[in-house]
Amino acid sequence: MPYGDELTPELIISKIRDVVGSENAKLHEPTFSNLEEEFVTKCIRSGYVSSVGSYVDEFESRLQDFTGARNVIAVVNGTSALHLSLLLAGVKEKDEVIVPSLSFVATANAVSYLGATPHFVDCDETNLGMSSNALKDWLQNISEVSAGECRNKITGKRIKAMVPMHALGHPCYMDELLQIAHDFRIQVVEDAAESLGSFYKDKHTGTLGLLGALSFNGNKIITTGGGGAILTDNDEIAKQARHLSTTAKKDHAWEYFHDAIGFNYRMPNINAALGCAQMENIKKLIEAKRKLYYAYKSSFSNINGLTVLGEPENCTSNFWLQAILLDNKFSYLKDEILKKTNFDGLMTRPLWKLIFKLPSYSNCPRSPTPVAEELEKNVINIPSSAGIQWSI
Amino acid sequence: MPYGDELTPELIISKIRDVVGSENAKLHEPTFSNLEEEFVTKCIRSGYVSSVGSYVDEFESRLQDFTGARNVIAVVNGTSALHLSLLLAGVKEKDEVIVPSLSFVATANAVSYLGATPHFVDCDETNLGMSSNALKDWLQNISEVSAGECRNKITGKRIKAMVPMHALGHPCYMDELLQIAHDFRIQVVEDAAESLGSFYKDKHTGTLGLLGALSFNGNKIITTGGGGAILTDNDEIAKQARHLSTTAKKDHAWEYFHDAIGFNYRMPNINAALGCAQMENIKKLIEAKRKLYYAYKSSFSNINGLTVLGEPENCTSNFWLQAILLDNKFSYLKDEILKKTNFDGLMTRPLWKLIFKLPSYSNCPRSPTPVAEELEKNVINIPSSAGIQWSI
Repeated sequence: MPYGDELTPELIISKIRDVVGSENAKLHEPTFSNLEEEFVTKCIRSGYVSSVGSYVDEFESRLQDFTGARNVIAVVNGTSALHLSLLLAGVKEKDEVIVPSLSFVATANAVSYLGATPHFVDCDETNLGMSSNALKDWLQNISEVSAGECRNKITGKRIKAMVPMHALGHPCYMDELLQIAHDFRIQVVEDAAESLGSFYKDKHTGTLGLLGALSFNGNKIITTGGGGAILTDNDEIAKQARHLSTTAKKDHAWEYFHDAIGFNYRMPNINAALGCAQMENIKKLIEAKRKLYYAYKSSFSNINGLTVLGEPENCTSNFWLQAILLDNKFSYLKDEILKKTNFDGLMTRPLWKLIFKLPSYSNCPRSPTPVAEELEKNVINIPSSAGIQWSI
Repeated sequence: MPYGDELTPELIISKIRDVVGSENAKLHEPTFSNLEEEFVTKCIRSGYVSSVGSYVDEFESRLQDFTGARNVIAVVNGTSALHLSLLLAGVKEKDEVIVPSLSFVATANAVSYLGATPHFVDCDETNLGMSSNALKDWLQNISEVSAGECRNKITGKRIKAMVPMHALGHPCYMDELLQIAHDFRIQVVEDAAESLGSFYKDKHTGTLGLLGALSFNGNKIITTGGGGAILTDNDEIAKQARHLSTTAKKDHAWEYFHDAIGFNYRMPNINAALGCAQMENIKKLIEAKRKLYYAYKSSFSNINGLTVLGEPENCTSNFWLQAILLDNKFSYLKDEILKKTNFDGLMTRPLWKLIFKLPSYSNCPRSPTPVAEELEKNVINIPSSAGIQWSI
C-alpha cells in the first residue's frame, strides 16, 4: 500500500484484520492452558475453596518471585487492593490524593471510600501516565509544605498521597514522580492494576512506591476471575494489610477478637488456584503481547495520521492494551472508527472519560489537563488478547 | 448413661463423639458432589471466569427460585452485600443503625463503611437474634419520631435502619421487628449471611425486610469460595444494586460513563459456577443439617445442665451451626470445654465477643444487654458440617 493513504475507518479495520485475521476479536480475553482446570479441580477436591488454603500462599509467593516485591497480599480485586493501600499509606477523611485525570474510575473511587478527595492532574503524552513536569509545576503553584506535610493552599486540605497509574501497562516516569513525592512529602501508592509484567528500569511496577496494587480481573494480563494484590516492601505495612483484609481478627485458637474495623478482602483459594495456573505461563503471555505490538506496528507502519503506542524509554511494557493514537487532525474520526470496528466484530474502545468529567467528581480540585484532553480524543484501544499471537 | 451425670468437658466430648465418630471434626466444612468440578471446568473452558458470564445469571436465578426473592444480585461476599444493602436502604454518614450486640463483626463494619454508627441492642434467648421486646422498650425510651424519621434523643442522630441477624441460621421474630420498624420509621435490612435455607413462617429469611444479605463463604451452608447476594423485592433498588456493584457504569457500546461512586462488588463467574453446583444439592444439605440437630439432641438428651439449641416457633432453621447452651451454673466450664474439645480434634467455638466490647465499637450507643451477655457466656458451637450426616 502506498505511503500516505487517506486515513479511514476502513483502512484501520483492514490493518487490524491483517494482524488478527478474519474472526471476531475481543479487546482482551484470557488465555488458558490445561493447568487452570487441573489446579482448580485439585482445589475443589481439597475442600479448601475459601479464605484459607495453600493456593493463596502459593499465588502470593509466585507473585513475589515474579515482581520482586518483598510482600504480596492477595485480595478480592484491584479496587480493594487500592483502597487498602491508600488506607495503609495514611490517607484519612478530608485528605486530598493526587490522581491522574486519565484512569479507570476505580482509582478515584478508592480515594472516595476513605472520605478523601481525588485531586486530578495532567498526563504525559508518551506514556499516558501522570505527568511529572505538569505535576511539579502545579504543586509549586498550589501547595506548601510545612511540618512535614503538603497542604493545598486553595482548599486548605492535606495532600497525603499520589497514585501514579501505569496506563495500558506502560510505566510512568517513576524517578521523577518519586522525587516530587519526596520533595513535597507525599506518599506514593502505585496503581499497577494494568501493569503486571511491566518494569521501570528493571524494577517491577507497583514496587517503587510505598505500596502498589495489582488487578487480576478477567480482562487483565492474568486472571483469577476476580482478584487483586497489594505489593509492599514494608513488612509492618504488609502485616497490617493482611490483618485488615481478614476482618482484623487477632490470632487465637477460638476467640473472635477484632482490634480494628477490618474488611472482607482476602482472595478465596479457588481464585488463587486459577491464578497459580496463570502464573505458570505469564512470561509466554507477555511475550505474546509484545509480539502483537510489533505485528500492529508493522501493519500500521506506512499509515499516516496515527501512531501505535510503544513503550516508554528505559521501560519494559507488558503491552496490556494495544493502542493507536490518532493525530489531532484525525480526532474527528474517533467515534466513527469505534463504531465501524465494533460493528465489524473488532472490539475497540476509547480511553476512559477523564474522571473529573463524571458527575461524582466534577467538583474535585484539578490542574489544567491539556494533554489528557488530547489523549482522550485520540487514543483507541484495539484487540489485545495474548491468544492472537499465541495459542497454548 | 444415668440421668443427672455430672457435666464435664469429657462428658460433652463423648456425646459429640457419639454423633461425629472418632475422626477429627471441623466446625463447618463444605460438601461437594461431582458437579462442582464439572461446572467450574465448563466455566474455565468457556473463557468467561470473571465479571461477565452465564453462571452468575444462573446462580441468581436459582437463588430466586429457592428464596422466593423477586430480585437477587450476586456479589463478592456477605460483607459487600450488607454494605450495599445499607447504602440502598438510605443509610448516610452520621446516621445510627440498630445492630444486635451478638453478631459477627461484619454486621457492624458494614455500617461503619458508610460513616454511620452501629447502635447495639439486646438479643432474644430463644433464637439469639435481636430481641423485639427489648428493642421496643429501648426505642420508646431513647428515640422520638418526627417528620417521618426516628431520632436518638440522646445523640441527636437519625436512626435510619435496623439489621436483624438470623444467628446461626435461626430466624429472628420478624413480625414483631417489622412492626417496630414500621412504628418507628426504620428501614429493615436483614443480615441473612448465616440463614440461607431458613424460613420465618414460610418466608425465606432475607426477603422480609427491604433488603437482605446472604453469604457463601467457605463455612456457610453453600459456598462459592467467597461470595454473597443481595435479596430485594423492590425492582428499583435491585436495579441500583446491580448498577452500583458494577462501578456504576452506564450501558453503552463502548463509552466509560459512571454516574455515581460505585463498587467492584460483582461475583466472578467462576465463583458462581461453584455456587450453581452447590445449589443443586441445597435441599439435601439442609436435610443433613436437620438430621444432625436431631442426632445431637438425642445424644445430649439425658444430660443435665445444657440444651441443644433448637429452632424458634413457626420457623424452619437451616441449623447452620449447631450449638449447646450451658445453664448459668455451668458457665464457668465454657473455656475448659472449648480447650478440651479442640484439643481432642473436635472443632468448637464460642459465640462472637459482643461487638461493643471490641475497641472500635466501645464508644457506640447501646441498650442494656443482659441476655446477650448470658448467651456470650453460655453458647458453644459444635461440629456442624452437613457431611457428618450425609456424604454424596
